[in-house]
Amino acid sequence: MTYCVAMKVESGLVFAADTRTNAGVDYVTAYGKMHVFTPSEDRLLVLLSAGSLATTQELIDTLKRELANPDSEGDLTQGQQLFEVAQYVGSVSTRVQDRHREALSASGVNGEVSLILGGQIRGDEPEIFHIYPQGNYIHASNQTPYLQIGESKYGKPMLDRVLRPGTTLNDAARLALVSLDATMRSNVSVGPPFDLAVYERDALSLTRNARLEVDSQFYRDFRAAWERGLKAAFNGLPPFDWEDPAST
Amino acid sequence: MTYCVAMKVESGLVFAADTRTNAGVDYVTAYGKMHVFTPSEDRLLVLLSAGSLATTQELIDTLKRELANPDSEGDLTQGQQLFEVAQYVGSVSTRVQDRHREALSASGVNGEVSLILGGQIRGDEPEIFHIYPQGNYIHASNQTPYLQIGESKYGKPMLDRVLRPGTTLNDAARLALVSLDATMRSNVSVGPPFDLAVYERDALSLTRNARLEVDSQFYRDFRAAWERGLKAAFNGLPPFDWEDPAST
Repeated sequence: MTYCVAMKVESGLVFAADTRTNAGVDYVTAYGKMHVFTPSEDRLLVLLSAGSLATTQELIDTLKRELANPDSEGDLTQGQQLFEVAQYVGSVSTRVQDRHREALSASGVNGEVSLILGGQIRGDEPEIFHIYPQGNYIHASNQTPYLQIGESKYGKPMLDRVLRPGTTLNDAARLALVSLDATMRSNVSVGPPFDLAVYERDALSLTRNARLEVDSQFYRDFRAAWERGLKAAFNGLPPFDWEDPAST
Repeated sequence: MTYCVAMKVESGLVFAADTRTNAGVDYVTAYGKMHVFTPSEDRLLVLLSAGSLATTQELIDTLKRELANPDSEGDLTQGQQLFEVAQYVGSVSTRVQDRHREALSASGVNGEVSLILGGQIRGDEPEIFHIYPQGNYIHASNQTPYLQIGESKYGKPMLDRVLRPGTTLNDAARLALVSLDATMRSNVSVGPPFDLAVYERDALSLTRNARLEVDSQFYRDFRAAWERGLKAAFNGLPPFDWEDPAST
């Protein structure tokens, strides 16, 4: 499994992903699921992937090959708006899946991938898109300023409680780690290290791009502070009417 | 959907359930999913249900009828250990499901139910069991002192972080509400009011049994305190090394 989350706030975008992949429980490895592209000087693109690792790798290889080939019908430099790039990535994704569908389904294997594409093209707004395995997409909204792929449930409640369009980029990045941490604790197929990227609007390059190891001093301090804060929040809950308030 | 959770701590048991049921998104109603039985003076039983409402109702009706009928082959008074009652309830559950399986599967409908049975028989330990649709069961452990049925993911992270065998009954009850609240926020098919029951070991009757409305003063205070606490916890997270600590 996988957990990736992207957020869109007024000041920019945040992307985060775990790195654990597995083929069954007896083959667990680490692969980056965050791919950063600057195919031309007018755009910055970040692609997050969940699902078949083989489809993902062939998709990334195809995107790079079409970018390098001047005769390609389409590539990552196309379009003046990000949704056009989402359409292109969706079409490459379905093309790769179609190529293997028959052989995979004969073996009962699912070759689907879900993607998040985010970034900005100069002159357009920063945006994030969830590209479905079928190639179509949705984008985020002011009411739901985030998108998730993979194991999305464990890490969703805090996003709903905290994330608002006005959240700062660094707070959004902290929230992404909180969301990843909750997911990692509950699903062993989601695991460290974590990739975290912060994009400031109109920068057209990543402002921060970090790989966080869970045994780093920062991450240990972060988890300890979060655990302490949650326990304090829990201890601050009001007593039931059947309890003696003095005894709680 | 449904969300039910049961907890086993040293001092007793806690049970909590939402009350929302739906047949599609256009038929949403409220039914209690917590059923309390004191079939004989030596035992207290609590049954939580998730899945087909029709199967659940026929199951409960059958349990009551067999209890009232002196010629029944088995009933809720059988056994000196709670696992024997779990076996009996599992067998009634599969019997009800078998009766309707053919007609339901012809309509593409799933008649399965997942159950949590908890309580105590005098002379035995308090215990909780997750009874699968197939009639078999698992119980909780010291490492995982809780069981969930229905929409379990949203409300699981806080259980993993906070619940320990030594947690007090009232703290466990508060934790059940935190877990329900997170689930209700993220899944509209889980909804209020909530049923909450607290069982003190060796009491052989429920110590507390409350139905909580979310617009009650207690619940509004509870949610507000939890939101405040979570925000304080979030604001207490450490800055990234690229931030000026003075500015956060």
